[in-house]
Amino acid sequence: MNPDFLLKNETARRLYENYAKDLPVIDFHNHLSVADIAKDRRYENLTELWLEPDPYKHRLMRICGVDEFYITGGADPDAKFEKFCEIFPDMAGTPVYDWSRMELDRYFGIRELPDKKTAKNIYKTAEKFLKKPKFSTVFLLKTNKIEHQSPVATLDQDLTPYLEVGVSPSLRGDNLLSTEPIPHLQQRLAAFSAAGCRFADHSLDTGFFETGNTEQLIELAGEYAKRGWTLLLHLGALRQTSTRLAQRVGPAGGYAAMGKGVEIERLAALLDEMEQKYALPQTVLFPLNPRDFEALAVLQGSFSGKVQLGPAWWWCDHASGIRQALDCIASYGVLSQFIGMTTDSRSILSFARHDYFRRILCQWISEQDWGQSEEQLGRLIRKICYENAKRRYADV
Amino acid sequence: MNPDFLLKNETARRLYENYAKDLPVIDFHNHLSVADIAKDRRYENLTELWLEPDPYKHRLMRICGVDEFYITGGADPDAKFEKFCEIFPDMAGTPVYDWSRMELDRYFGIRELPDKKTAKNIYKTAEKFLKKPKFSTVFLLKTNKIEHQSPVATLDQDLTPYLEVGVSPSLRGDNLLSTEPIPHLQQRLAAFSAAGCRFADHSLDTGFFETGNTEQLIELAGEYAKRGWTLLLHLGALRQTSTRLAQRVGPAGGYAAMGKGVEIERLAALLDEMEQKYALPQTVLFPLNPRDFEALAVLQGSFSGKVQLGPAWWWCDHASGIRQALDCIASYGVLSQFIGMTTDSRSILSFARHDYFRRILCQWISEQDWGQSEEQLGRLIRKICYENAKRRYADV
Amino acid sequence: MNPDFLLKNETARRLYENYAKDLPVIDFHNHLSVADIAKDRRYENLTELWLEPDPYKHRLMRICGVDEFYITGGADPDAKFEKFCEIFPDMAGTPVYDWSRMELDRYFGIRELPDKKTAKNIYKTAEKFLKKPKFSTVFLLKTNKIEHQSPVATLDQDLTPYLEVGVSPSLRGDNLLSTEPIPHLQQRLAAFSAAGCRFADHSLDTGFFETGNTEQLIELAGEYAKRGWTLLLHLGALRQTSTRLAQRVGPAGGYAAMGKGVEIERLAALLDEMEQKYALPQTVLFPLNPRDFEALAVLQGSFSGKVQLGPAWWWCDHASGIRQALDCIASYGVLSQFIGMTTDSRSILSFARHDYFRRILCQWISEQDWGQSEEQLGRLIRKICYENAKRRYADV
Repeated sequence: MNPDFLLKNETARRLYENYAKDLPVIDFHNHLSVADIAKDRRYENLTELWLEPDPYKHRLMRICGVDEFYITGGADPDAKFEKFCEIFPDMAGTPVYDWSRMELDRYFGIRELPDKKTAKNIYKTAEKFLKKPKFSTVFLLKTNKIEHQSPVATLDQDLTPYLEVGVSPSLRGDNLLSTEPIPHLQQRLAAFSAAGCRFADHSLDTGFFETGNTEQLIELAGEYAKRGWTLLLHLGALRQTSTRLAQRVGPAGGYAAMGKGVEIERLAALLDEMEQKYALPQTVLFPLNPRDFEALAVLQGSFSGKVQLGPAWWWCDHASGIRQALDCIASYGVLSQFIGMTTDSRSILSFARHDYFRRILCQWISEQDWGQSEEQLGRLIRKICYENAKRRYADV
Repeated sequence: MNPDFLLKNETARRLYENYAKDLPVIDFHNHLSVADIAKDRRYENLTELWLEPDPYKHRLMRICGVDEFYITGGADPDAKFEKFCEIFPDMAGTPVYDWSRMELDRYFGIRELPDKKTAKNIYKTAEKFLKKPKFSTVFLLKTNKIEHQSPVATLDQDLTPYLEVGVSPSLRGDNLLSTEPIPHLQQRLAAFSAAGCRFADHSLDTGFFETGNTEQLIELAGEYAKRGWTLLLHLGALRQTSTRLAQRVGPAGGYAAMGKGVEIERLAALLDEMEQKYALPQTVLFPLNPRDFEALAVLQGSFSGKVQLGPAWWWCDHASGIRQALDCIASYGVLSQFIGMTTDSRSILSFARHDYFRRILCQWISEQDWGQSEEQLGRLIRKICYENAKRRYADV
Repeated sequence: MNPDFLLKNETARRLYENYAKDLPVIDFHNHLSVADIAKDRRYENLTELWLEPDPYKHRLMRICGVDEFYITGGADPDAKFEKFCEIFPDMAGTPVYDWSRMELDRYFGIRELPDKKTAKNIYKTAEKFLKKPKFSTVFLLKTNKIEHQSPVATLDQDLTPYLEVGVSPSLRGDNLLSTEPIPHLQQRLAAFSAAGCRFADHSLDTGFFETGNTEQLIELAGEYAKRGWTLLLHLGALRQTSTRLAQRVGPAGGYAAMGKGVEIERLAALLDEMEQKYALPQTVLFPLNPRDFEALAVLQGSFSGKVQLGPAWWWCDHASGIRQALDCIASYGVLSQFIGMTTDSRSILSFARHDYFRRILCQWISEQDWGQSEEQLGRLIRKICYENAKRRYADV
């Protein structure tokens, strides 16, 4: 991988090298399996580690016309991997193309571009690594300088593995949004707090405001605020698209879409109600449709900085979306308060995306005309890549 | 015209020169008059060829304050042309400004910028060409390397001229969307297929989902899928704006607007119904409001690649819109599967827009950081500008 | 301040220097206090002049966590100013950061970046200036080459101060939109016309079309058209967000948000009704959500140039929003007809924003590939920065 990847001028390269590259990683919301970490799971090959659990890659293989047999079907692991590599050059432009190259380089030192010809060699090289005794989940995680991460847990989940592994949970609150009272709410929230939980996420999918579940959310937000937690709102996903794919590959198969956009008026009213009825917690907004970036970035000024636009999420998490989010946060909100990157990923390899984000951030900053020294810009980079997120879990 | 027009670096210029420039043109959806081709129509002057039939130019003349007398009124052809040239420098930034310069250069070798002073000379130069015996519709078409084009025909239209001229029709399906059964549907579809038709377009204007015509469309889509046709959906036009202009210049006078945006949720449900009830054909989405580009590009992953965002359409068909579409297709979909450019034009000169598109594509690709050789990038360019569209009509 | 601020190449710098920089300023819509001009108000210090009356700055201070005591509360002026400077480097990316640096340089020759260390010195330097006998409102205004400005007045407002000061009013029409007849409408409009009024603005906030006030607006538009006035429509503000802030700091405290976007279909119908029932005046559209820029720019062609997208407004008035507006006006409308910049500001210092706009315009134009000479581009710049606005008040 070119060490100057995405860094197009000297200032960008110096900012990255001197201020961004070596900062610790905080990944405040992801879906890593704590059970895998606890048992220090090992992987046979790249297909098991890298293809099978990744719906992003399945999606691209489907778009490029690969038969389902080689995606989620019964094909052998090496045949699946070959199919993936065969279409890999055709994926150029997608974030998966960038991430994949970064991950192969970072974890396996592989710098060849995957394609039909290189597939076998890449598979073998990675296999050799994965067969080494040390090449386990915990080792792979340690390749990254992770200072804090908080994989999600549902409220009724047993937190023992988190405590054993020494990782804080974040609360996955989606299933809480019903009209019935939540049993043992206070005890469970206390248990999560004791385990270091400081983040809770809820999905307000397309149609959410028709569900009548806002009351429950307003009350929970009050609880989060009381405990100094940060509320993460994932907005506007359209999860029901192809019935055929839903039946074939289950609910999280990479075929979700983005809805038309957030109902800003209702969202602003919801946040106001939180503030009025109980308390408005620190809140980060993750819209799925980038068309909402501007309107949501403006809300930072409507609630005294308690609400902010989060990093480019899910389908938006690529160079173009990240730049667009930075533009909007800076122009419509205040960039220095930005909580920065989180992966929201299920893969232990995807911490490389923090590096991706940092390169794009340094390039973007190098293009601005602010009259600040590189040292001053370095301080801003440190806030966005590290300190702002740290304040959310370490200050409480 | 500067040969480096829109090509801002060496890579872009080499990609254009070595891979894009000389590819054959496939124009899978346009509104050319097959009757004009059949009779090899000739044109007296630029006004007849270039101004009178072009609502894009009428629109700009109106915006710049030209009296309707010189637009669609009774003024002499040369007076109309002078008025057009007079305001031409004021059109800079519009696609018509770029297209016009390219067309004057390509077909008449005219490189002067049209303005008040050059108007007469340009008119005369072009007139000289047009008076030459060979300067007919067929000759002008041959100036372009057109391998395939499919002008639209309605289902009840006589296809004899298409067969005589050796041009395939594409089906203009708009008028089919009623609640009554379509007479002789199967025979007509068979006749279109026999004449080489592989594309059918329908307009879902603003308010379409209130019409109750989705059932008919779902059924037709099944027919198209059965025959291996590609469905083109033109989305979100707002055709009713100024009653005054509608009364004065008829239904296609260049005053249409773009609606607020596509109802993604309903569109996704419509595509799902097609897939569930009969079959989902290969489908290309042409939203009129660029604010829908991202959400529609994502749908490529929701229907296993059968659905894709099309090229920047109508009011979006300019450098800025084309770049935005490329960004979205690449980041949210998969660029290598992109069907590429079509003009949707009524003018025999507008094949120059394929060159416009190719220049913008090469420039855009030259800015990416994919670690691919120029030969690999050339393969991608070939797919987008030629092969992907060809597969749609040649593979059946 | 770097003299090349925002000008990134030689062409941009020459265009700015030779054509843009010295053009007179026309500010056709602002909220300056004519009473302050009339009494040639003086200011004690930067806090009184620059902080206290500026909700944009309050908003940013709140986002950056400054206590309300130092924003709108009882803190001493110098303490407020220090708090502002302390967080100033953290505002980089916001328009206030750019404007502030330009204003300090232009009016006080201060080129230091405000921060914790420089705060006291900046405050004192400015105070020294402000204490000089000549440093009054009128003097500050004269620093700018203002040829015309029209601060708003409500219909029932006494226009004597405007006549005394020699400044034309523009009509703030918001409070007129009720279902009751307006008393003395004709006389008041005549008085405004006599005082030089040529602009009237109305706000169609989120939810406007539910109010039933369109009839009144259609009738008023006819009156404006009759008198050759230009109608300014401010679209899509969401003024009600945090009840807490509304209670604490009143209705214009910098916490407004942008709604989801304009209902284009209803807006087009409204403009058509104006044209059909009475008359459509020259109309400038100011959408608050930039996602509407394209669709509103297209409307220029739907009403024969009578309607156009205006300059980037309110939360959009920054480098990124201005560039986006230029892109949309040029690609979807016609840039040469653009009315150009107005501040919509309450501050006598904010005429520097015209310089900001001009720099961004020259840079943007330098990036285009139009094949025009710098002299031709200069003519375009002159139109956009001066002549097009002038025609609106001087031609009647």
